Amino acid sequence: MRHDGRAVDALRNVQIEKDYLLHPEGSVLITVGNTKVICTASVEDRVPPFLRGSGKGWVTAEYSMLPRATGQRTQREASKGKIGGRTMEIQRLIGRALRAVIDLEALGERTIWIDCDVIQADGGTRTASITGAFVAMAMATAGIVERKKLPKFPITQYLAATSVGKSDSNELILDLDYVEDSSAAVDMNVVMTSTGEFVELQGTGEESTFTRKEMNGLLDLAENGIQQLIDLQKQALGTICDMIESKEEAAQ
Amino acid sequence: MRHDGRAVDALRNVQIEKDYLLHPEGSVLITVGNTKVICTASVEDRVPPFLRGSGKGWVTAEYSMLPRATGQRTQREASKGKIGGRTMEIQRLIGRALRAVIDLEALGERTIWIDCDVIQADGGTRTASITGAFVAMAMATAGIVERKKLPKFPITQYLAATSVGKSDSNELILDLDYVEDSSAAVDMNVVMTSTGEFVELQGTGEESTFTRKEMNGLLDLAENGIQQLIDLQKQALGTICDMIESKEEAAQ
Amino acid sequence: MRHDGRAVDALRNVQIEKDYLLHPEGSVLITVGNTKVICTASVEDRVPPFLRGSGKGWVTAEYSMLPRATGQRTQREASKGKIGGRTMEIQRLIGRALRAVIDLEALGERTIWIDCDVIQADGGTRTASITGAFVAMAMATAGIVERKKLPKFPITQYLAATSVGKSDSNELILDLDYVEDSSAAVDMNVVMTSTGEFVELQGTGEESTFTRKEMNGLLDLAENGIQQLIDLQKQALGTICDMIESKEEAAQ
Amino acid sequence: MRHDGRAVDALRNVQIEKDYLLHPEGSVLITVGNTKVICTASVEDRVPPFLRGSGKGWVTAEYSMLPRATGQRTQREASKGKIGGRTMEIQRLIGRALRAVIDLEALGERTIWIDCDVIQADGGTRTASITGAFVAMAMATAGIVERKKLPKFPITQYLAATSVGKSDSNELILDLDYVEDSSAAVDMNVVMTSTGEFVELQGTGEESTFTRKEMNGLLDLAENGIQQLIDLQKQALGTICDMIESKEEAAQ
Amino acid sequence: MRHDGRAVDALRNVQIEKDYLLHPEGSVLITVGNTKVICTASVEDRVPPFLRGSGKGWVTAEYSMLPRATGQRTQREASKGKIGGRTMEIQRLIGRALRAVIDLEALGERTIWIDCDVIQADGGTRTASITGAFVAMAMATAGIVERKKLPKFPITQYLAATSVGKSDSNELILDLDYVEDSSAAVDMNVVMTSTGEFVELQGTGEESTFTRKEMNGLLDLAENGIQQLIDLQKQALGTICDMIESKEEAAQ
Amino acid sequence: MRHDGRAVDALRNVQIEKDYLLHPEGSVLITVGNTKVICTASVEDRVPPFLRGSGKGWVTAEYSMLPRATGQRTQREASKGKIGGRTMEIQRLIGRALRAVIDLEALGERTIWIDCDVIQADGGTRTASITGAFVAMAMATAGIVERKKLPKFPITQYLAATSVGKSDSNELILDLDYVEDSSAAVDMNVVMTSTGEFVELQGTGEESTFTRKEMNGLLDLAENGIQQLIDLQKQALGTICDMIESKEEAAQ
Repeated sequence: MRHDGRAVDALRNVQIEKDYLLHPEGSVLITVGNTKVICTASVEDRVPPFLRGSGKGWVTAEYSMLPRATGQRTQREASKGKIGGRTMEIQRLIGRALRAVIDLEALGERTIWIDCDVIQADGGTRTASITGAFVAMAMATAGIVERKKLPKFPITQYLAATSVGKSDSNELILDLDYVEDSSAAVDMNVVMTSTGEFVELQGTGEESTFTRKEMNGLLDLAENGIQQLIDLQKQALGTICDMIESKEEAAQ
Repeated sequence: MRHDGRAVDALRNVQIEKDYLLHPEGSVLITVGNTKVICTASVEDRVPPFLRGSGKGWVTAEYSMLPRATGQRTQREASKGKIGGRTMEIQRLIGRALRAVIDLEALGERTIWIDCDVIQADGGTRTASITGAFVAMAMATAGIVERKKLPKFPITQYLAATSVGKSDSNELILDLDYVEDSSAAVDMNVVMTSTGEFVELQGTGEESTFTRKEMNGLLDLAENGIQQLIDLQKQALGTICDMIESKEEAAQ
Repeated sequence: MRHDGRAVDALRNVQIEKDYLLHPEGSVLITVGNTKVICTASVEDRVPPFLRGSGKGWVTAEYSMLPRATGQRTQREASKGKIGGRTMEIQRLIGRALRAVIDLEALGERTIWIDCDVIQADGGTRTASITGAFVAMAMATAGIVERKKLPKFPITQYLAATSVGKSDSNELILDLDYVEDSSAAVDMNVVMTSTGEFVELQGTGEESTFTRKEMNGLLDLAENGIQQLIDLQKQALGTICDMIESKEEAAQ
Repeated sequence: MRHDGRAVDALRNVQIEKDYLLHPEGSVLITVGNTKVICTASVEDRVPPFLRGSGKGWVTAEYSMLPRATGQRTQREASKGKIGGRTMEIQRLIGRALRAVIDLEALGERTIWIDCDVIQADGGTRTASITGAFVAMAMATAGIVERKKLPKFPITQYLAATSVGKSDSNELILDLDYVEDSSAAVDMNVVMTSTGEFVELQGTGEESTFTRKEMNGLLDLAENGIQQLIDLQKQALGTICDMIESKEEAAQ
Repeated sequence: MRHDGRAVDALRNVQIEKDYLLHPEGSVLITVGNTKVICTASVEDRVPPFLRGSGKGWVTAEYSMLPRATGQRTQREASKGKIGGRTMEIQRLIGRALRAVIDLEALGERTIWIDCDVIQADGGTRTASITGAFVAMAMATAGIVERKKLPKFPITQYLAATSVGKSDSNELILDLDYVEDSSAAVDMNVVMTSTGEFVELQGTGEESTFTRKEMNGLLDLAENGIQQLIDLQKQALGTICDMIESKEEAAQ
Repeated sequence: MRHDGRAVDALRNVQIEKDYLLHPEGSVLITVGNTKVICTASVEDRVPPFLRGSGKGWVTAEYSMLPRATGQRTQREASKGKIGGRTMEIQRLIGRALRAVIDLEALGERTIWIDCDVIQADGGTRTASITGAFVAMAMATAGIVERKKLPKFPITQYLAATSVGKSDSNELILDLDYVEDSSAAVDMNVVMTSTGEFVELQGTGEESTFTRKEMNGLLDLAENGIQQLIDLQKQALGTICDMIESKEEAAQ
């Protein structure tokens, strides 16, 4: 039994609130237990220099936490004058993950800027960011199609993420909150598609190691959790799902 | 008649949602029309170097906007590696304004960090930040008193802020939204206390000027709006009001 | 009686030395008591990106203090690697104030760079900077007209600034020096034109507040002081005055 | 058959040259094909603030590439004034991996600084860095023991790393060089100990995905390669091996 | 004949105006032709970390130019956020040169901060800075002695600097102005003491070279110019000269 | 007799290993005693903005030390976020020196980037960098000629550098190592061409001074050492020497 009463294979309560903000082309507030992230997708009609003239688009992400998203106030990176290693790692991960399920050629020379701003943190902020950002990106992309600026919908599959880990009592658990994450011996972030393939897998022994058998147990938990998250994404996206699913079928 | 149907002396719809976040000692979401700001107050048991050993406390503020708080995406200051002039000006203003209604000696050697994060912007973000931050600061300060760490409540008066301006059609108006602010000939931010005194007054002719008579008309509008905002602060603060009011009486 | 023997409504001794430096298109050394500021105006034949192709010009300002302008040596902002909040606030104020009295369309696609370098500080450096910078800008602008590169003189009015305040003994005083400024309960910077209109008004209670009646008393003092400063600007500008005055008449 | 004639499960030619530099407490030049990295370990008799007084030590790493380690000259991060996301990710990975095989309490309040400087790059620089840095760390740590400053040897296991991937022709391959890495559909970095446990696992589909079966194939390749690398580490370390092996036995 | 009518071995008109600013412990305005530099010396009662507890003092220098010291406006280093290579080189040179003529042990644990701010530039700003800074340092140091905080005067010799060069017409010339400096084939800065010894010698062929014979001719010119500059320093220093001269005699 | 047994006029053991790295157009490892520097030359087919359209090329240099090139670990400049004064001075010196022996017009609109990375430091790193960089530049330049992209070889003379100094026992010595450099009273870096002319001369009294006679003694030592270094460059360059020598003859 976990400290909050959950089963080892249970996600926390997850909500995806669509159209959370007025201005962005796509926006959600995703809530995973006490973790809350505002994810927005902004469409810009140009691409970074290395893609100019290539006909291909780009997806890039930025991640930040409000100073009091956390129990202790964290200094703002803007005040420090530089972005820390953890933030860099997370925003590179989010962008890379989303690019795996969008056809950048079909997107054309556009950039989708993903912004994930954690307003409350209780573990799992990077995976919640990916799960929420996917919905924001799908909304923004559908908008371009609706405005007739894009002939075909470029998103090819659903994508969601969760964390799994080995607790300090050697139990394999799904969707770690902050208390569990702080004491975990092994922490693994998994990003998967609706067809059950991996996009990213990052497992880390925290001053510890893990066996291949444990890794397989963790992946079973993750797979299960991610399919539940994708179901919630589908509910949030409503009719936009049809666009994605026709792409998935086409791919088969 | 204004573009959104308001009378010249009408505030937008204002809501102050208390205890908006889990972790901070004080937090609100303040909504002024479409402007939304998360204001938090964090208590730290030490002061900046220039106050060490003085027995006095400090209040300081930081302000930021999410990249898509605005119609066009704004680059993060953390990515630029430096804080812009507008942000600096606003955060200095917020801190200075709040320090006028707190007895820093009664606070003792503590710092109250105010964080104002604009999640949606539609004009008046700096004045909404001050109005919301006052409530967060009062909550955090009351918490210290309740935990018996402070013998007397240090806040001496209510404090709120609004903007007034002269529109491009030379009308004097209260609480400008983004559309009005962008075209205003004169823009004035006013910070006042519950006893009707000024704490800050910043009037600017935008490539324009204003007469003393216009200034007086603007101050009449502001005074009226601020008293309404203070009423809303009182509703949000509930029983904490008694602490402030006993201070106000003591001061008379 | 003030600590230096001045009446409450007396300016310090003010001098404006024209053509102080060899290279700039306009330059003055302005002396206000012991405050000394070198103000230069440089003309550049292009504008910032947001104005390109608009046919409009721009005026922007930078402000700095020599490390030993002050009683204690201040670290250079170049050594710190960033510009502080106070400097940002001041340089934004100077630029904004000057833009209110120049017809940016008449200026054409040119930038006037104002540089205010305080070589000795004794209070009132930002208002001395504005008063001196106006003269430098007028000189530089007249030079463009004389070189036949501009058909009409773009400056529309005189502009000067001073500070007023409420002393710690509750007296309202004009043109505060450093000693007075450090202990003032209220500090107000006022920027006005020769026709008696406000361009900028910034009043601040320093951990204190002020009433509307006090504000009116402060503005009376400021108005009087600014008219004296404009008389000194006229003496410094000599024949350039004719260009400004014909604009003022045209505007009436 | 791979472009350089290697079998899919073959490492490139690997050499570990010990005591490469005069000054550091431990140093190697590791060569993996055309990739060459100078790895040094420096011992400092103090720890970062968060560990002071804890009795525990720390291992931290920095990573850099010479500008012409690469085919095209890369701008120095010192010239840019900031460290990029890729560098941050790599140096965090190196430090984290090494900390998994050292008993930080046994190390005492010391920091081991690992510096990995790539003088020539041809793919796999991060895994070569980890493999080489382990040897440098072991040498530096053995030196502390020899100088009688540490009662017991703190390193608990061997540690090495390699990359595996899925080529653009869907073959699973070991130890990718730059040409293979640039076109790979999937890229996975694996860090393992001599007892066959994982310390880090980072698999990324580059605008692509991978199945669980493919992942298992990749891990088989990695496991095999890493055991070969550990054999080469043992040859380089010579008698220091005895210290590590007695620790491993003790742990069983 | 030079472009300004000077003989090849003639200095420009030099003036040293003492006590130029109110606040610093020592200050001069040095004018060398059209080059004008404000040099100040500030005394701080502590030393950098590497000297704490050593009983020795330190002299350090900073150098800057106003944006319009030059014909074209130069961007401020504070705005760029970093100090350029030329500035670094010059301020290191000034500090090093001054430290050669002060007994740092006799100074005690104090830092003398030298600030050289060029308000107008016409070549030779670094050598004018050294010549002026020596006078400011002597004044500040004499002040410490007069306030009875230092038992013996620590300055041991006079120090001045000038530039010499080979013109584009292969003439050897003294004290180059901007026009001459821009076209010179060889440029040499020489720092010497009153006893005719070198402290610094920096000769540079600008995409050119120079022979040993030319170097000797340049040094003859420099030696002569520097003795004239030292005579001007003596006039400026007045009675402080006695302190320096008694040191010089003691040294013989 | 010097601490390492050398005669006062003896260089340390010098080796120049050509083609040290795979990717750069020119590269050497230069070893001077225990000082080791990797020098590379990279050719870029464009020039900095101030030369665009001029038909002229450019040579620029960057210099860095590995953190453990030195006895104590030095913090990376990339981690500090800025380049220090010493590095700036050295890289400006290297670039300036090399530009004196290349015909920038003959080079055409190309930039040669010189990178000098010290992997082990024992005094004389800047002069070893110049001596090694010359060889790398000659190799890279010869490569352009060989690829028929340049009609004539642009290098006009050999160039090498060494240090000389006055030891703490007042002996004049050649090629100071770290121990000697740390205690030297006078330190002079000399850059000369094969025809015996100076390109750069930087002599510094370290809290000390030097006479003209001493300077002449130092230059005699330097001249001798540099001719030996040029002989070693010739051996390293092999057939490329013919290109340089034909230029030298043409110049006579």
